[in-house]
Amino acid sequence: MSAAAGTKQRSPRAKNAKDRARVLLAQTGLPQNIGFVLRFAQAAVWSDLVKALQPFNVRPVHYSVLLILTAAPGARQQEIGEALSIQRPNLVALIDELEERGILLRQPHPEDRRSHALCLTDEGVALLAKLKRVQQAHERRLNALFSGEERRALLDGLARLARLTPDTAI
Amino acid sequence: MSAAAGTKQRSPRAKNAKDRARVLLAQTGLPQNIGFVLRFAQAAVWSDLVKALQPFNVRPVHYSVLLILTAAPGARQQEIGEALSIQRPNLVALIDELEERGILLRQPHPEDRRSHALCLTDEGVALLAKLKRVQQAHERRLNALFSGEERRALLDGLARLARLTPDTAI
Repeated sequence: MSAAAGTKQRSPRAKNAKDRARVLLAQTGLPQNIGFVLRFAQAAVWSDLVKALQPFNVRPVHYSVLLILTAAPGARQQEIGEALSIQRPNLVALIDELEERGILLRQPHPEDRRSHALCLTDEGVALLAKLKRVQQAHERRLNALFSGEERRALLDGLARLARLTPDTAI
Repeated sequence: MSAAAGTKQRSPRAKNAKDRARVLLAQTGLPQNIGFVLRFAQAAVWSDLVKALQPFNVRPVHYSVLLILTAAPGARQQEIGEALSIQRPNLVALIDELEERGILLRQPHPEDRRSHALCLTDEGVALLAKLKRVQQAHERRLNALFSGEERRALLDGLARLARLTPDTAI
């Protein structure tokens, strides 16, 4: 899983190929492009979190939905979609799946007949407690790469980039 | 396309919904997670570049492959895959497509009978010149969000995250 372990296992031949790849990539100038490096960073970080959540048969988006329902029990589907920038059809499928698995419940919304209030079940609450530990360990792996000041600057920079899209809630 | 234009078009009702979404998201703590904000940043930046390249019927990965072949004319497919972390089947399909479109050529490799040397055609060179201008305008939109020092720190931080995966060439 860790970069150090991967490096140790690599054969001299594979290492040479990687060194050549690094030189070739540097010649293109791509490692100086924010967009390009951002994509590689995202792929590496995502892969780390996806692997960590796999034993629980959930993806990062499930975790985010569960967190929202803890912060705002009874939230409407639409509110979750707005907060997480998830398109309606994808969110409906996701909520269906979590309901079938007994993780959340759709209940009548007290103020809005056309909507449902979504709530975690006891099972959902127990699952979220486990996922939180996994996610926190993942975040610690990322934080270990930065000082506190570097981390704050990185989060700020990423939020500025996220706001290139007008509909982000970050 | 720009965030400013999107904001102007937004109705007061949509703005209220977005403000509520922002408050809800802040309550979850997710905007303080590097992995979460990274994903939103990547989605926004990628969408900007994908839209900019659309008129040329190319995706960012096509652009990267063309850049590699300018830096290293006659490169092998495997070398491109190593540099850009593209899996072999995906890369084969991509090279096939670029060859069919007359953008690059597979030629016999002078040192390795089992490989092809890949080269841009004149059309490929002309296309890349146009794509470079589009990509540079995209990168200027990103750079406008940062001072020179902030930009360097951001690139450095993203490269550290990318190296969580041992097989990156960054």
